[in-house]
Parts: sequence; C-alpha cells; structure tokens
Amino acid sequence: MLGLMMQQPLLISSLLVHAERHHGEQEIVSRRVEGDLHRQTFRELASRSRRMAQALKTLGVADSERVGTLAWNGHRHMELYYAVSGMGAVLHTLNPRLHPEQLAWIANHAEDKVLCFDMTFHPLVEAVAAHLPQVRHFIAMTDRAHMPATSKIANLLCYEELMEGAADGFEWPQFDENHASSLCYTSGTTGNPKGALYSHRSTVLHTYAAALPDSLNLSARDVVLPVVPMFHVNAWGLPYAACMVGAKLVFPGPHLDGKSLHDLFEGEKVTLSAGVPTVWQGLLGYVHANQLRFSTMNRTVIGGSACPPAMMKAFQDGYGVHVLHAWGMTELSPLGTACVFKAGQDELPAAQRDAIQAKQGRAIFGIDMKIVGDDGQELPWDGKASGELMVRGPWVITEYLKGEGGSPLRDGWFPTGDVAMIDPQGFMQITDRSKDVIKSGGEWIGSIDLENIAMAHPAVAMAACIAAHHPKWDERPLLVVMKKPGAEVTREELIAFYEGKIAKWWTPDDVVFVDAIPLGATGKMQKNKLRDQFKDYRLPTA
Amino acid sequence: MLGLMMQQPLLISSLLVHAERHHGEQEIVSRRVEGDLHRQTFRELASRSRRMAQALKTLGVADSERVGTLAWNGHRHMELYYAVSGMGAVLHTLNPRLHPEQLAWIANHAEDKVLCFDMTFHPLVEAVAAHLPQVRHFIAMTDRAHMPATSKIANLLCYEELMEGAADGFEWPQFDENHASSLCYTSGTTGNPKGALYSHRSTVLHTYAAALPDSLNLSARDVVLPVVPMFHVNAWGLPYAACMVGAKLVFPGPHLDGKSLHDLFEGEKVTLSAGVPTVWQGLLGYVHANQLRFSTMNRTVIGGSACPPAMMKAFQDGYGVHVLHAWGMTELSPLGTACVFKAGQDELPAAQRDAIQAKQGRAIFGIDMKIVGDDGQELPWDGKASGELMVRGPWVITEYLKGEGGSPLRDGWFPTGDVAMIDPQGFMQITDRSKDVIKSGGEWIGSIDLENIAMAHPAVAMAACIAAHHPKWDERPLLVVMKKPGAEVTREELIAFYEGKIAKWWTPDDVVFVDAIPLGATGKMQKNKLRDQFKDYRLPTA
Repeated sequence: MLGLMMQQPLLISSLLVHAERHHGEQEIVSRRVEGDLHRQTFRELASRSRRMAQALKTLGVADSERVGTLAWNGHRHMELYYAVSGMGAVLHTLNPRLHPEQLAWIANHAEDKVLCFDMTFHPLVEAVAAHLPQVRHFIAMTDRAHMPATSKIANLLCYEELMEGAADGFEWPQFDENHASSLCYTSGTTGNPKGALYSHRSTVLHTYAAALPDSLNLSARDVVLPVVPMFHVNAWGLPYAACMVGAKLVFPGPHLDGKSLHDLFEGEKVTLSAGVPTVWQGLLGYVHANQLRFSTMNRTVIGGSACPPAMMKAFQDGYGVHVLHAWGMTELSPLGTACVFKAGQDELPAAQRDAIQAKQGRAIFGIDMKIVGDDGQELPWDGKASGELMVRGPWVITEYLKGEGGSPLRDGWFPTGDVAMIDPQGFMQITDRSKDVIKSGGEWIGSIDLENIAMAHPAVAMAACIAAHHPKWDERPLLVVMKKPGAEVTREELIAFYEGKIAKWWTPDDVVFVDAIPLGATGKMQKNKLRDQFKDYRLPTA
Repeated sequence: MLGLMMQQPLLISSLLVHAERHHGEQEIVSRRVEGDLHRQTFRELASRSRRMAQALKTLGVADSERVGTLAWNGHRHMELYYAVSGMGAVLHTLNPRLHPEQLAWIANHAEDKVLCFDMTFHPLVEAVAAHLPQVRHFIAMTDRAHMPATSKIANLLCYEELMEGAADGFEWPQFDENHASSLCYTSGTTGNPKGALYSHRSTVLHTYAAALPDSLNLSARDVVLPVVPMFHVNAWGLPYAACMVGAKLVFPGPHLDGKSLHDLFEGEKVTLSAGVPTVWQGLLGYVHANQLRFSTMNRTVIGGSACPPAMMKAFQDGYGVHVLHAWGMTELSPLGTACVFKAGQDELPAAQRDAIQAKQGRAIFGIDMKIVGDDGQELPWDGKASGELMVRGPWVITEYLKGEGGSPLRDGWFPTGDVAMIDPQGFMQITDRSKDVIKSGGEWIGSIDLENIAMAHPAVAMAACIAAHHPKWDERPLLVVMKKPGAEVTREELIAFYEGKIAKWWTPDDVVFVDAIPLGATGKMQKNKLRDQFKDYRLPTA
C-alpha cells in the first residue's frame, strides 16, 4: 500500500522558487571580472534565471543537452546554475585551470552544445574553440560594453544581450527528479577525466543534508562567501543551500588573494566561508601581516584536503573563527562528513577538542560509510584500524558518464580511494589517499600526519611527504618542503621536530627543500608529480 | 537523460540504522507507566526494534497491515514506531483521549490487525475489544510482572515476552519509498474522522526539513522532550528527527503535570521541548508558584494552536526560554512553518520582535503556501490581506484513507481551513480557523487576536471568542472566559481592557464567565461546543 502524499519531484528549480517567494529581498553580491561590486536580489536572480532559460531555449538548447561554463564565482554563473538545470538541460562546469587540451577533451566528451565563459577566459576559449566542433554557441558572460573588439570566435554571443532579448515568462518544467542536472569531471592522476552526473534528486537531498545544524548549519541569518569555485563540485553545494535557507551570498570573482577576500569578508559582513587549505594560507598571511581581524566571520569550512592543525589553531585561537573540518569528493556531490561536536565534547580540554577537530568528522544523514581491509572485510570503528573508506547514499555516483573507467562500485559501495580510521563515536579521519600511503616494511605510514607536523613548524610554508624507494623497507617517507619567504630551517632541525610527536619509525628519512610544490586544478598538492620528480632519489638511509 | 546517482529509497529504517551506527551510545530516557525512569541507548533501541519486527512478523503481520498503538510517549512506543514502519507494515497511532466509540470506529476503519497498548489503557481496551473484530492480537506494552491478573481480553500478549522470544537477526526490507509508513486520524468537528496516510518518503523529507537551523534546529547536542504525544501526528516528527541527528530523547509517559515535567527537564538536562499552549499553562503555573527556573532548556516549540503572546513573554522574559512558534496540521506530517528570525530581526526593538514572534512563521523548505480569497484568487503578501491558507509539498496529503471526505485538493493545493495573513517577509500568521472567524457586517473579525488580548489579563486562565448572532451585523464577538482560581474580573473591566489594543469595532459585545472551556483530544479549545452552548445567546447590543 502506498502512502497518500503529494508527489512533488525534488527539483533544483524549486529551490529558486522558494528563494524568490520567501527571501526575495536577500542579496547576492559579486565582485565581477569587469571590476565592479555588483548587487542583485534573489528576486532578480529568479527573474534573470528564467530569462536566461528562455534565451537558451530560443538558442535551441534541448532537454538533457549539456551547457558548459568557464567562469568564476559570480551572479551570472549562479543564474546559469538555475537556468540550465531548471530548464532540464545539464550544467557542465569546466575547470579553467586545466590544460587547454584536457579542457577540450572534457568538453568534447561531455558533448557540450553551448559554452558560456567569463571574459578572463576569452583567450583560453579562443585557443580551444577550433577543437570544439560540437559547440554551437559561445556566450561571453558580460555586457555589450565589455565585449572584445575582436575575437577569433565566430558569432560570439553576449550574455546580457541574450538576457535583454528574453521575456520573463518562462515556466520551470516539471520532470522526473532523477533527471540529470549537472556534470562535473574529476581529473584523476591516471586515465581520462571522468564525469560525475548529478540528478535533481541527489542535489536537493544533498542540499537538505548540507544545511543541517550538524553539517554546515546554514540559516537565513548567514552571509556565505564560497571561495571554493563554482567549477569545483558546485562550490560544495552552497549555491543551492543559500536558496534553500535564504542566506546572503557573496561571490569573490577572480580575486582570491588575502586582501581581496578580507575586504569582502568585512565589507559584506560574511559569517561563513568555505575553501581548501591552500587558499587560506594567503588569507591568514595577509591578515597576520596587517594585524587585521575578522569582525563577523564566525566559521569557515575547510575541505578538499585535510586541514593542517596549525591552520586550525591560527583561525580559532588567533581570530576566533571556528573551523568546520569537512570531507567529500566529486563523486559525493561532494559532502560526506562534517566535524561537529557531539554533546559534551565542547567542554573537553583543548587538546582533546583539537584531536577531534583534526578528524574529518561524522557522516551527514544520507551517507553511510565503512572502512575495509585489503581483503574487503569491514574493519572496526576503534580509532585504530585503518582501511579504505567506502560510502553509499542517494548523492553518491553509481558510475561515470559514458561508463568511463568501468564500474566503480564494490557490492553497492563506492570506494573513495581514501584511507581512513573511524573512532567509536563515528568520527572519521583520513590518514591518506590510498595512492599516497607509504608502505614501509609491510606497514602503512600515513603521509598526512607527517605533513601536518611539518606545517606546524614556523619556517614551513607547505610540506608534502612522499614514498621514496628503500632497498630494505621498500618505501620510506621523504619530506618535501617549501619554506616561507625569508625563513630558514635545516634538514636536521625538521627531523628533530618530529621527536615525541609520532612513532619513531614514522619519522621521515630525509628532507628536501624545493622552491614550489605543484598544485592541481583544485588547489591540492600534486604528490604524483613529486613522486615522479624524486623517483630516483637515493635516501641517506638506503 | 537521468543522473548517474545511487538509487537509495528514503526509508524510516535508515534513520534507525544511522542512529545505531553514529549515535549508538545516545540515550532514550522514559518515565514509564510502571513508575520507573527507564534508560536505553539508541543501540538498544535498534536491537529491540529489530526483535519486535521479528516478533510481529512471527505473529503474522503482513506487508501494509495496520498495527494500532494506544500509548504514551515512551521507549516501547518508539520501538514500535521503527519496528512497524521499518518492516513494511503501517503504524497507526490511536488517540486514547477519544470517546471509546470513536476509537473503535477508527480502529475498524483502519482495519487494525494488532493493537498494542500501555497498561493505563487496559480498561479502555477491555471495553472496546469486543467491537474490534479485525484485531487478531492484543499486546500489553509491559513485562510479565506487570501484566494484569485477569483481563477480559482473550489471549492477551505480553510485549516483553514477545521481545524475549525474538532473535535479533531481522533485516530491514528495502522497498518503494512511497510505501505507506504510518497513519494518523484527524477528528474534524463535522463528519467522520479521516486518516492521513504518510509514506516513508514524506516522513524522511519532513525529518530533514524539521531539523534545519531555521526549523527546529536539532543537533546531536540537543536533549529533546516531546510533551506533544506520539499519538498526535507522530509527536511532530521528533521521534524521527532525534534519530537523524542523534539527539537524546526524554519521554514523559503519562505524567504531564507541571512538577513531573519540570523534574524531567532539570534531571535530564533537556534543551528543547515541544507541545500545545494548554500544556504549558500548567508548567508555567507550577514553576511560578514554586519560584523555580529552567537550567538547561533554551527553547520550546509551541504549536497546535496559536501561542498567546502572554505565554511567550512568560517563557522568554521570565525564564530565558526562547519560544519557537510553529504551525502545522495532521495533513502536513505536521510541520508547515516555523517562526525563526531573518537577518537583522534579532536586533529589532522588543515590540517589533514580539510582533514577529506572534506569527506562525516562514514556510520550511518543501512547503509552498499561498492565501486565497473567497473567489479562489491569490491574495498579496502584504501583512494585511487575509484569506484561506493553501499549502502543497511532498509531505502534504493528497486524499484521506479510503477517500473519506472526498477529494480535498483544489488545483493541486490543500486547503488548510485556516485563515491567515502573510507579510512581505513571508511570515504567515493564522488569524483564525475559517469556521471560527466572526463575520460582522460582511467584514471578518479574527477570534485569535481577541483571545490573546483577554489571555494577557492577569485574571484570565483561558478565553475563547465566538460568533454570537446579531440582528443587524449577522455576527458579533462574544468572549467566553474561564477565570484563574481565586481571581476576579468584571465584564466591564475586560471590555475596557481592549481599549487601544485593537480596532474599536472588533471589541467583543459581551463577556460570559464559565467554569471550564471544553478541550478536544489534542488539547485545543472546542469552540464548536461553545457555539452550540451559546447559539441562542442574546447580546446586550442586539
């Protein structure tokens, strides 16, 4: 027997309808490529999204066709989020930091029919346009006054002209909530990039879960500045969550340096921000150097990579900004866990609180997780056993677009490629990526712990710990360090710095200093490149 | 094109699985009918729910069959919530405050096959058992030691014996998330009672929405005491929400007097409570008389009827307990709106904050609402126009069980029977039930405002305002007042009390004093009975 309840599909357009009706006056503030600080209300967002949907329909965009974007965080990108998914097409956010060849490969693989881009990326699009035979329309996300005088792109369309030419009568279609809504490629270190194809259902359920008090805790009283790009797993879902709860949104555009971010935090009274650890280093450096503070920001979400405890301490003890450590991945839409205290944990001594916060946290409702050993058997939640993290839930992928990479699931669970421990309270801690783990004499050494300790040294700007070949132990840890400008530290001092902080046999065998550690398109350290670079490195212990 | 995301049905059992895995040590504390204060963990809840599901299956309960309960808020009732719905049967919570004849009518209409009851209700069940030919098993929710020596019920089963006889190997079945999960009858003032048949999907979506920061704001750090009965729209969803977020639950059993509740609030460190206004009067009276305070309770949800401003003031100004005004109904699972401030409203002057809090609040995401005039046309959200409130959303019914009462929807919207205004910020305020509104000379007078003013008078315990016949104006307001014990107030003083508080022509034409105002089975004033009682009343103004 079925229940007798209304059958309303969970659609992304319903988030926008809700925002317009209940939070019509709420603001979206955007630092634009054109240089100005632009303001619009959710009411205007709703109207402009409807008009852009109408314009795209007039251009011939059909159901399920992919519309690509190459854009910063800004109101026009937000309008496309709702216009494209809302009309039944698929929003494909491309990462402009990828190599042009890879970008073209992805756009062709996704069969993008339209490509919308910020003017910053005009040269990039000019360079790849000839390699995108399937794209029927290129749209520059600007007004007529800022259109390029000349362009190698034939029939380049102007976003604001399309907007002006479209009426506001578009009605959001109703369809199956499992309809595809958006597409984001993950660029593995091996094989071709693979597309995660989200649905309206998965997105709306993820949004509910992300806004919960024990997740990001989002309300109509929040002012949210996503530093995490809208081309990186939908800015962790914040563009959707802001509409669900009626939070003010502040978009930083291309300016992610410390000063630009801090100015926006203060000027727009931001309460919550979100980004990867690398972006916060610049901000903290700027704030420290200029003896500034955060007047309104009370918490920041850090994910994408493990947050070094030193950074957590700097935010919390130095500036009173609570760090919300979170974990997710492209294949999870992206949120899987958030590190939010259970009852009583807030009253623990500082060291114990810090130890909890160093973990990536508890599964948000909807995500089920487990860790398994090499034999696939589930391991206990004892805070000691470490194994591959497996997840399942309504916002986890079943396979990649066009079956790329084969069938990823194992017995209905998605293997994350992360190695983790889970404690008896259910707090999960990533100890490593399975490909980054250092296998020393049959035992595993997690590289993240070793990096976190090095990053706590005042002279260290960034540190990566990788496996180096060892004739006896197979692999031993090698620490690769980028020093802070003007700071000095020796190999011996760094090795001594580990004393008492970790099991002795985990201590790196050697330290090398480099000018820069390579970062990937989403701001993560590219340890595979370092492994290549040091593949013939001879350890002094060898 | 469909998204490539996991297809996991939204099932009530998944709430319990999550609670067991992530909050296994969290407590459920129950004041039981047997008199003791019982404690169990979510892990024990999960195990006992599985065993009870196994026991019910062994008793022959089949898919979709209804299992009735007549029980207070307690751990065994909670176990049945999960056991019955989780196994694919339908939990039917019966209201023991109904007249036995009505109760039997409802159980027969629902075709209950099993009836589980607290020992309090043994005499009631003995009285109706003979009229329940479809019930195959009667289960007393107690242990062998507390079973009655004799019973008129043949083959009376003992809950704890069934539990002991069942193994813990039951596996929750997976099925369509639209499968019926639970059933709750609403007793209208006219016609037969009508059953709202909830689904797993509607329940889980309602739970997500209810836990949001701008709804009940529930976290693992909360200790929740639902005073609202589990036989009254699933205790407003709290038994589900507690499992989703890992909140401690405290169940008061049959003892809802001020002392019993206050003892539990303090002893178990309750942070959040929930109930109808009438129950809070007893509590506030007890706390005031004994000069007590609330050490841990920081907020209380008040719904079911409009919360009189005087009660809100007593909680907030007197005891520092924030009142969360909410609105819902059986047909909405029940939550529709919650009155939570938007940005900046918390800093408004007290009078403006009070005016906002007197409203029932903003729609929680998932619920869409509008107000319509007599012609069915939508009215503006200007805080002035008042019309019938219409709602829709995935946890709103489409029809009643077995089509009772015909098709309730109008153009896809459910007419709530409430008359409301909505202000430009989206805050909805109920001005009346449509059947309670007073139609004076073609204009509408809302009875709730008039009652709230009377309730603010120190001598008034309870006040109802009803329409009395008037030869010129058709209807005029008549105030029916129950005085506080020992307090005195005259008709003239009460009429003068309205001066300056309301439009002059809204002032009641007369006041009558009564010993008691009749309350219905869910604690609401039965104004239809008062209207009957005073249907020939001659107003002095007539």
